[in-house]
Amino acid sequence: MIKVGVIGSTGYAGAELIRLLLQHQEAKIIWYGSKTYEGKEYSNIYKNMFHFVEATCLDEELEELSQQVDVIFTATPGGYSATGLNEKILKNTKVIDLSGDYRFSDTKVYEDWYKIKHYNQEINEQAIYGLCEINRKKIKEATLIANPGCYPTCTLLSLYPLIKEKIIDTASLVIDAKSGTSGAGRSATTGNLFCEVNESIKAYGVTTHKHIPEIEEQLSNFAGEKVTISFVPHLVPMNRGILITAYGNLAKEMSQEEIDTLYQKYYQEESFIRVRKSGDFPETKWVKGSNFVDVSTMIDQRNKRIIVMGAMDNLVKGAAGQAIQNMNLMFGIKETTGLMQVPMFP
Amino acid sequence: MIKVGVIGSTGYAGAELIRLLLQHQEAKIIWYGSKTYEGKEYSNIYKNMFHFVEATCLDEELEELSQQVDVIFTATPGGYSATGLNEKILKNTKVIDLSGDYRFSDTKVYEDWYKIKHYNQEINEQAIYGLCEINRKKIKEATLIANPGCYPTCTLLSLYPLIKEKIIDTASLVIDAKSGTSGAGRSATTGNLFCEVNESIKAYGVTTHKHIPEIEEQLSNFAGEKVTISFVPHLVPMNRGILITAYGNLAKEMSQEEIDTLYQKYYQEESFIRVRKSGDFPETKWVKGSNFVDVSTMIDQRNKRIIVMGAMDNLVKGAAGQAIQNMNLMFGIKETTGLMQVPMFP
Amino acid sequence: MIKVGVIGSTGYAGAELIRLLLQHQEAKIIWYGSKTYEGKEYSNIYKNMFHFVEATCLDEELEELSQQVDVIFTATPGGYSATGLNEKILKNTKVIDLSGDYRFSDTKVYEDWYKIKHYNQEINEQAIYGLCEINRKKIKEATLIANPGCYPTCTLLSLYPLIKEKIIDTASLVIDAKSGTSGAGRSATTGNLFCEVNESIKAYGVTTHKHIPEIEEQLSNFAGEKVTISFVPHLVPMNRGILITAYGNLAKEMSQEEIDTLYQKYYQEESFIRVRKSGDFPETKWVKGSNFVDVSTMIDQRNKRIIVMGAMDNLVKGAAGQAIQNMNLMFGIKETTGLMQVPMFP
Amino acid sequence: MIKVGVIGSTGYAGAELIRLLLQHQEAKIIWYGSKTYEGKEYSNIYKNMFHFVEATCLDEELEELSQQVDVIFTATPGGYSATGLNEKILKNTKVIDLSGDYRFSDTKVYEDWYKIKHYNQEINEQAIYGLCEINRKKIKEATLIANPGCYPTCTLLSLYPLIKEKIIDTASLVIDAKSGTSGAGRSATTGNLFCEVNESIKAYGVTTHKHIPEIEEQLSNFAGEKVTISFVPHLVPMNRGILITAYGNLAKEMSQEEIDTLYQKYYQEESFIRVRKSGDFPETKWVKGSNFVDVSTMIDQRNKRIIVMGAMDNLVKGAAGQAIQNMNLMFGIKETTGLMQVPMFP
Repeated sequence: MIKVGVIGSTGYAGAELIRLLLQHQEAKIIWYGSKTYEGKEYSNIYKNMFHFVEATCLDEELEELSQQVDVIFTATPGGYSATGLNEKILKNTKVIDLSGDYRFSDTKVYEDWYKIKHYNQEINEQAIYGLCEINRKKIKEATLIANPGCYPTCTLLSLYPLIKEKIIDTASLVIDAKSGTSGAGRSATTGNLFCEVNESIKAYGVTTHKHIPEIEEQLSNFAGEKVTISFVPHLVPMNRGILITAYGNLAKEMSQEEIDTLYQKYYQEESFIRVRKSGDFPETKWVKGSNFVDVSTMIDQRNKRIIVMGAMDNLVKGAAGQAIQNMNLMFGIKETTGLMQVPMFP
Repeated sequence: MIKVGVIGSTGYAGAELIRLLLQHQEAKIIWYGSKTYEGKEYSNIYKNMFHFVEATCLDEELEELSQQVDVIFTATPGGYSATGLNEKILKNTKVIDLSGDYRFSDTKVYEDWYKIKHYNQEINEQAIYGLCEINRKKIKEATLIANPGCYPTCTLLSLYPLIKEKIIDTASLVIDAKSGTSGAGRSATTGNLFCEVNESIKAYGVTTHKHIPEIEEQLSNFAGEKVTISFVPHLVPMNRGILITAYGNLAKEMSQEEIDTLYQKYYQEESFIRVRKSGDFPETKWVKGSNFVDVSTMIDQRNKRIIVMGAMDNLVKGAAGQAIQNMNLMFGIKETTGLMQVPMFP
Repeated sequence: MIKVGVIGSTGYAGAELIRLLLQHQEAKIIWYGSKTYEGKEYSNIYKNMFHFVEATCLDEELEELSQQVDVIFTATPGGYSATGLNEKILKNTKVIDLSGDYRFSDTKVYEDWYKIKHYNQEINEQAIYGLCEINRKKIKEATLIANPGCYPTCTLLSLYPLIKEKIIDTASLVIDAKSGTSGAGRSATTGNLFCEVNESIKAYGVTTHKHIPEIEEQLSNFAGEKVTISFVPHLVPMNRGILITAYGNLAKEMSQEEIDTLYQKYYQEESFIRVRKSGDFPETKWVKGSNFVDVSTMIDQRNKRIIVMGAMDNLVKGAAGQAIQNMNLMFGIKETTGLMQVPMFP
Repeated sequence: MIKVGVIGSTGYAGAELIRLLLQHQEAKIIWYGSKTYEGKEYSNIYKNMFHFVEATCLDEELEELSQQVDVIFTATPGGYSATGLNEKILKNTKVIDLSGDYRFSDTKVYEDWYKIKHYNQEINEQAIYGLCEINRKKIKEATLIANPGCYPTCTLLSLYPLIKEKIIDTASLVIDAKSGTSGAGRSATTGNLFCEVNESIKAYGVTTHKHIPEIEEQLSNFAGEKVTISFVPHLVPMNRGILITAYGNLAKEMSQEEIDTLYQKYYQEESFIRVRKSGDFPETKWVKGSNFVDVSTMIDQRNKRIIVMGAMDNLVKGAAGQAIQNMNLMFGIKETTGLMQVPMFP
């Protein structure tokens, strides 16, 4: 049984970790960390957990926690783990960090986009970017995982075969992303009130969103050359789900059939990537509550472009689910353990 | 392994049966029946099932099906099983009927409220009303289960201890119910279009809803005397969930504490009923996707009334989940098998 | 031209006042008061007003304001006007208070339910309860209007003929109310976040909601005897709209036709009350953005009860619209001025 | 008083025409045409119109109607007016067609994309594309207006200054569009049911949407050269609103300030275009129920691209509002008559 501690267990990503871990046969949660709700009964904050969790929220003492558990998930705001982690903790336990703190090979990029000072350059060097389908091998050996952001996960897995095979002209890449509101977290802000989000759609973080450099670093790795993208996220009046629609010029002449075959080749062994036929566009409702990414492509013949769509649950594959997938890999258990829920519809 | 056939597998309740049965360790679906989609790939209609189901929808030949399976679920419109079932089928297999066809001891009541002729009086006499928590013993012996309606399930379980103990004046009972839109089914009607349901609330079926006589028959059983209620259902712009708010005059002087103790006594052994403290009102979001009913009461001291609230997922405990709970009981396996999902929030 | 000041202009009710007053031919807003946003451009907070409003939010200096305007609307939290109003202000200007501070003949009732000390007993005695259809005559002479609460407005107008004519047994009255989320205001609280409200329904304020004594005082006035009710409000995942469903025993034998005739008699001259035929149930979507209340009744023959439904826009007839209707009456202009918008659907 | 007939008055666009025309001081509706609801009371279908409309739906006899009215609005499915209009009708009356039938200079393009035969080549030549801000002069003289599609209106007005001034490289243009569900019309289809649309987002009509050639023809006019675009629309779980996010390479070096100045120059005289500062992104909630288009741009310095966002109410500026704006122009009355509603929020 893997002993687990969750820091930030009362945010939406943290609560999703709890929900999934409670249904994981080989993990046992022994620490529900929460700065905001320390001392409160967990099941009184997330009442869906009533009769499942009897624990009370604990503080966020990483060092103490590291002596008691096999793995710590940090579902915390930017800066927390950049500051809080140290070698001692990492000697005691594995860490899967759901924040952006360890996602960049160069901490300067992090500092520029996050506007937060990074004090842990050496630890940053140990961190493995936990995009399971791509970095599976390194993840198995890792002590510290930087769990990818929600938009990056959806974007990267949707585009990987095209970039890797140099089918798309990366200079032309435009990614238009749409996310449900749980991605904004559970902090009480006017902008996230029901009446403000409901019955509306808007772009946000245009040219400044923190996931831009994260996507770019990974795409550059795939491409073997520097990639710069335009990426605009939008807020959609729904709880869960991310859809990305990516557009790029074809760098070589390809038929739709060849593209479909390529995606099959890349992903047929993957449990969590479902390649849909061209013309069968992904919808977030078909992946809700699950760890799947549904992907589909469509060549736009009239202008030699390819349009790629990917749909995913931002709280599962985009956060808690992928974090658990990383845990499974790190502990050598079956990668899909605890993650094969059928998506819930409607 | 229990071999299962589902008739009406492409309605919302049918699809929820499929979703839950796919995650049930002791059941195996071998027949996806659908009049509308016969010959179509199931996972092309419910694309959440992609990679889970490879089957094609079959017709609804009950007799043929009965020879191949241990249990048939009929998630069909009113009249289908009242007409289609026969002794031969019931000799071959068990049947759990999710429609209203076998829910009344007197088929005349059915005919009056449903405006459908009932041709199966004898079979009706074998049917057991599948409200698991109340009729558990009879269910274990049953061949034909009338799976309760969504509103009745929520209402009956919320009120049972009060009626049974004659704490509430049944003549004063008012039940105001609210349901998500999946309860209206998947038929394409103008009234259920997104723009018609969204951003609105309305009452419907006032004094005529088919669940009224069903609730009354069961409440009368509990009370040992004829009970007549006022019941008004409302359509809420959300996918899943039922909330009932019931009001009745106290028939005897009781403190809130005594009521709370009573509910604990009745329900502490029940896996799927979660009694919340008075003042902690149920919300449908805390039960979404699960088989739980959350119940709470509040004495209205100023007018000697008691207010009872119950929340539940209409597609799970109100349909597919309870049907599987019935199956578990009928086949002598653990009642909670395949039904202990943690509610999904948000 | 009526010169108008609005205190609390950046809450939802305040913003609705602004929206409606901008389209009112005989009113001119000269003061946008806001404690939270003082010094900020109004149209930068409510960007729907861009190109309509150039003003900057001002402080909430009532005395200064009272010298500049003909009428002040106070759309403020409980306690603000109970404390802030004085004789001097009321000598300078008329006041329409949208809070609960002056809605009770007995300030003790206010203090008990609102848990706020009331310092203005004498001023309270001048206040007229601004339920236009009922108190029209007094309103015309008033200096200080207590604009009714949203739930009370919908409940009182829906039930008035039945109570007045003693057709309903007031001791049996149960009112189950449902409101859109704008009723909860624009304060940033976790409970009103999109993901918390969306896809859920819940009761709140059971037995303690502040509108209970307000409804009871007015119903008692109608009945000529003390009325005590059970009232439970529910939060619905939509922006606007209130629906009340009221249940009561018939105190005399009446046919549905007689009831319908009665409602016609009471309301046929009223511009803002639309009596719908029995069986044609009100829906909030048909009144959205308008000052209408849609009412319908249904006798429940089987238990000699009557069910009354009323639907209304909580921000218009339930707040800003009725406030303007009061203003129109107080200034002797046509009651419907600026209020005849066709409801917006979908 | 302009006498008006509306064909297709019971679709969402038709009903929005009715709503707006009822509040138009110089128009009078004398014909409520509806194939589906002929003989039914209009206010029984759209109950928001109760007490406003007493008329009964009439058939769709264009010739008869043309003798009675000054203008006919056809809010009808593709093919209706391509077939039904003739010279005689156009001699009697003006026609504003909200369908796509007369939007193309070349009927062959129409036939290719709409898969409908066009029988009215000569009449097509008289049609003026009713994008008011661009074609104002021609509209004033027109007899037949092709009222622009919703996506084209939003896209064209958002991009016009950039295309006209050749600031954007048209070959690189990508338009990602998002629409509320009222754009899908009121036909009862499974795909538009509440539970299917709610809590999900999807792309549709990828590379095949009928608005693609319409946008391309107009952009080509602006540019003076053939423009081919990538355009992907998405369905958003909300009733009203369109947001487009357009991406293109800068064809010349421009500062954000210069772009802002340009938009001001182009649009400062326009009543219905609200240019927002860069960084202040349009949201559909700020234009709901109004005829405004809110536009904003943002230079993406890192890759020399410009991102343009436009938000609009699809039923108003995207359909009924613009149709009335066209009517106002054609009859020589003030362009904004009946169209200056303050957007409704929340």
